[in-house]
Amino acid sequence: MILIGERINGMFSDVKRAIADKDEAVIVELARKQQQAGAAYLDINVGTAAADQHETMRWLVETVQKSCDAGLCLDSQKPDVIAAGLKAVKPGSRVLLNSAPLNRKNDEAILDKYMDMADSVEPGACLIALCMNTEGVPQNIDNRVAIAAEIVQHAMERSFDTQRLFIDPIVLPVKVPNAQVQAGNVLAAIEQISYLADPPPHITMGLSNLSQGAGERSLINRIFLAMAVSRGADSAIADVFDRRLIDALATAELLMNRQLYSDSFLKVYRNHH
Amino acid sequence: MILIGERINGMFSDVKRAIADKDEAVIVELARKQQQAGAAYLDINVGTAAADQHETMRWLVETVQKSCDAGLCLDSQKPDVIAAGLKAVKPGSRVLLNSAPLNRKNDEAILDKYMDMADSVEPGACLIALCMNTEGVPQNIDNRVAIAAEIVQHAMERSFDTQRLFIDPIVLPVKVPNAQVQAGNVLAAIEQISYLADPPPHITMGLSNLSQGAGERSLINRIFLAMAVSRGADSAIADVFDRRLIDALATAELLMNRQLYSDSFLKVYRNHH
Repeated sequence: MILIGERINGMFSDVKRAIADKDEAVIVELARKQQQAGAAYLDINVGTAAADQHETMRWLVETVQKSCDAGLCLDSQKPDVIAAGLKAVKPGSRVLLNSAPLNRKNDEAILDKYMDMADSVEPGACLIALCMNTEGVPQNIDNRVAIAAEIVQHAMERSFDTQRLFIDPIVLPVKVPNAQVQAGNVLAAIEQISYLADPPPHITMGLSNLSQGAGERSLINRIFLAMAVSRGADSAIADVFDRRLIDALATAELLMNRQLYSDSFLKVYRNHH
Repeated sequence: MILIGERINGMFSDVKRAIADKDEAVIVELARKQQQAGAAYLDINVGTAAADQHETMRWLVETVQKSCDAGLCLDSQKPDVIAAGLKAVKPGSRVLLNSAPLNRKNDEAILDKYMDMADSVEPGACLIALCMNTEGVPQNIDNRVAIAAEIVQHAMERSFDTQRLFIDPIVLPVKVPNAQVQAGNVLAAIEQISYLADPPPHITMGLSNLSQGAGERSLINRIFLAMAVSRGADSAIADVFDRRLIDALATAELLMNRQLYSDSFLKVYRNHH
């Protein structure tokens, strides 16, 4: 499982404050601890409060790279903010761009722009591509899979290695009326998406979004993650500090035969992630 | 989810002792508490140590029926022991016979005998049918589903309502070498079995068998159960006293849209099971 630590995000008050104060120590600590807890990538999102988003992204990327060698997941809805982060990464770093829809109103070619950006660094960056198009987030299984298929096909046509793609079928908050049925739809979509190419694209999700505003957040997150792993998901943007989530994940990977059984399988998993 | 409480089984030392001493209080307590914890049925297995298995089964059934009105899951590898229990049940009780293979060496018609037995009481008893045949437990998905299909077809041919069938795809201990891959196979089989009839047969499993001899038993059990629910399993023979298992189950059913979200969904689930 490729875990992407979610904590360096201006939406969290400690990070928001650190950004305002240019307090490197807070960011360094979050970066190191998340890598230690198993994060292969660290999501970096400046949030909405930053005065200068480009400058903030640059500062966060440089601060994180000073403190650890985890991959960087440059997260913004604005391509130019991601581009500012990309300029700041050390040569040769592992980078994931987060994220591109298939297309969107007034910008039908946005996926291509993100792929161009991913190709602009050495080695090529990976890309989170959302199951979203000009119509927004699809409300059923088939449309999610159809969009994922278009994304994969587009990648193949321009020789963008499908293993550099992280498809995100988009999980919606379970608390939103009518959104609940989406969880089952996302699971079914994940399974079908995993058959779209061989080797398949990665499949990721913004896990915490599922339990947004809900009670029992950790329980909801980890039960869904286990289900998603059993369908072929191999990545998540998540709270890697949640020990119960990591234990559930280790168990799910054990059951799906991605880890051998030993009596200390939880410890083995923690030591290798 | 139709939960079958596993505790009244002579394999547990307290029950073994209660059987030897004819100590009703132990059985009464286990029966009441399991029903309270959400068990719709109580498994009743005399174990291997009982001197007279028929008499022990009769005593257990009568003792349980004195203490609560949960359904009875008569569990033995010997049809005559199950028959002895069946004779002791109060008229009109909910009964589940546990369990019949499709066929077995020297007894090709064993499934029919169990169906006859299930039809011999009013209203008809339900039947746990194992994905097992003369060759034993199949080692892959297709053979499990093929056996389940034969069971369902056989039920249809003799007008045995498929909703009285509880198909058990058989989970093997994750700790047994080579058995680990079975967990994923069972999940895939469950999904296919759920499409075999409309309305589908119930799908159950002896959940604790999965973690037999393993560390982190509860974690392994509940993560697998959540995955199984996401594929269409609607029953399990399990430790209903395991609160974390019930919470995982409530969350799985919430995510699969079998329970509406409310902030107190765990409490709501517990109160209704």
